[in-house]
Amino acid sequence: MTLIDETDTSTFPRTPRNTVRRLPARAAYDRNSVAAILDEGLVAHIGFAGDRGQPFVLPTAYARLGDKVIVHGSVISRMMKVLSTGVPMCLTVTLIDGLVLARSAFHHSMNYRSVTVFGEAVLVTDPGEKAAALKGLTDKLTNGGRWDDLRPVTSKEVAATTVLALPLAEAVAKSRSGPPKDDAEDMNWPVWAGVVPLSLVKGEPITDQA
Amino acid sequence: MTLIDETDTSTFPRTPRNTVRRLPARAAYDRNSVAAILDEGLVAHIGFAGDRGQPFVLPTAYARLGDKVIVHGSVISRMMKVLSTGVPMCLTVTLIDGLVLARSAFHHSMNYRSVTVFGEAVLVTDPGEKAAALKGLTDKLTNGGRWDDLRPVTSKEVAATTVLALPLAEAVAKSRSGPPKDDAEDMNWPVWAGVVPLSLVKGEPITDQA
Ligand SMILES: Cc1cc2nc3c(=O)[nH]c(=O)nc-3n(C[C@H](O)[C@H](O)[C@H](O)COP(=O)(O)OP(=O)(O)OC[C@H]3O[C@@H](n4cnc5c(N)ncnc54)[C@H](O)[C@@H]3O)c2cc1C
Ligand SMILES: Cc1cc2nc3c(=O)[nH]c(=O)nc-3n(C[C@H](O)[C@H](O)[C@H](O)COP(=O)(O)OP(=O)(O)OC[C@H]3O[C@@H](n4cnc5c(N)ncnc54)[C@H](O)[C@@H]3O)c2cc1C
Ligand code: HEM
Ligand code: HEM
Repeated sequence: MTLIDETDTSTFPRTPRNTVRRLPARAAYDRNSVAAILDEGLVAHIGFAGDRGQPFVLPTAYARLGDKVIVHGSVISRMMKVLSTGVPMCLTVTLIDGLVLARSAFHHSMNYRSVTVFGEAVLVTDPGEKAAALKGLTDKLTNGGRWDDLRPVTSKEVAATTVLALPLAEAVAKSRSGPPKDDAEDMNWPVWAGVVPLSLVKGEPITDQA
Repeated sequence: MTLIDETDTSTFPRTPRNTVRRLPARAAYDRNSVAAILDEGLVAHIGFAGDRGQPFVLPTAYARLGDKVIVHGSVISRMMKVLSTGVPMCLTVTLIDGLVLARSAFHHSMNYRSVTVFGEAVLVTDPGEKAAALKGLTDKLTNGGRWDDLRPVTSKEVAATTVLALPLAEAVAKSRSGPPKDDAEDMNWPVWAGVVPLSLVKGEPITDQA
């Protein structure tokens, strides 16, 4: 379900919201580039407006399942309630790949891959779809078929949970990779220059002692 | 400048914006808890409203310098221009510490430390303050005194750069740590349960060959 379709060369439409203007050469509008970044991430930052346009940005686990991004939370959570009314939202996923150390401060940068998705969330109410989304979310976040080995979810647990689907219809990726790009006249400046790679790494699993 | 004052026991005021309602036991309103998370992170997600309340969330490097959070970008960037008009913004920093694998899907979670900061950015225009902020940002992001070894910034570079300071006046931290919290009756369910630690790790530096 989360497989990327290598033969899909379709791109997202460019809209006023998702058209990259700063350093546009770093943008990619094709579905596979966007999907690959979404599939590697675990946590999105979701933006929505509260009263009088106050923006809120909250970290949230997510999973891309086909052409939707699934998020979940408590039925009484403010974020879930606001998003389920179909307000415009922005869901951003960022993978940090490195610190780019140039000879000049000005050309310092970071290597990264990031995605913004715009749209309105749809409440998943159909029981079959809701169960499938929770299974898909759980298996994606835990890297495999854990769901079937778990104590089955109860109807009370499912009822306490809001599941939202954000259609993957208006999105874009932006990324930077590679070495620093210093000015030609600075190339012999006597300071170390290069990239310090950064990545989110798994440690040794800690078995629950309880 | 970025040192935490261990003797400072002051807390941020609780407002309608920054009061944690979901799982409030995970909240911390004291300055040191907030500062420690901000000082460990490299990238914030900044939320601001565009036309008709459309929220935008963009990843941005930042540094806490004393009681301000500093961000920078191009003078012609949309985000910098919008934020410098003093619109309400939300700056969120998230550190991912682990995946929490419970016996039930419902009790799966993540370990994390995150901060939200609310307020309005102030444009840093004074040349001395602007240079100090760019030096502070650079040294913080690169872990030390790199600035003094770099090819000095030019006035043209500084003029091309917008520096914004978000006062650290209304903020809160939320965090989770430790093992899964399964229901008592599930403790013998035959599935591995525990925590898979996650952290952003530095790799071997790659010297620029150019
Ligand atoms: C890595 C990670 C993954 C998460 N995954 C999920 C998920 O899948 N589903 C889910 O429902 N929640 C998730 N959360 C928690 C989420 O960020 C919110 O705390 C939660 O959704 C409640 O939202 P609310 O608007 O109802 O919060 P409220 O409690 O009403 O929020 C009120 C105020 O509390 C503060 N606040 C709330 N959350 C945070 C936070 N995380 N960090 C700092 N300040 C905060 C903000 O200032 C906010 O305006 C995750 C958090 C982290 C860090
Ligand atoms: C790890 C990281 C650190 C960054 N640090 C900084 C920094 O310190 N200063 C700075 O100015 N910029 C930084 N950026 C880039 C930043 O996210 C914006 O791209 C940039 O600030 C331009 O903003 P804008 O509103 O002017 O963009 P515009 O080009 O006007 O944005 C138009 C649209 O393009 C899309 N878009 C823009 N940026 C991104 C993105 N990063 N990912 C996905 N879609 C995007 C969005 O849909 C957006 O609405 C960083 C990015 C990453 C991933
Ligand atoms: C360690 C220090 C620094 C880091 C890690 C850093 C990082 C970044 C990153 C990640 C971007 C976004 C690039 C993109 O959109 O892909 C950026 C943009 C920018 N930075 Fe920095 N920066 C640093 C220091 C500086 C300094 C000291 C200056 C000015 C003297 C500066 C000026 C700029 C400008 C003008 C932009 C906008 C680029 C554009 O949109 O055209 N940076 N920086
Ligand atoms: C791998 C799978 C899952 C992960 C990683 C995960 C992660 C999370 C995280 C990080 C939170 C936020 C907790 C906080 O605010 O500190 C959360 C909240 C929540 N999750 Fe999950 N979750 C998973 C699966 C599920 C499933 C399958 C269900 C329902 C059957 C569920 C129901 C809930 C509910 C109801 C909340 C809201 C808690 C509250 O605000 O009181 N989760 N989840």
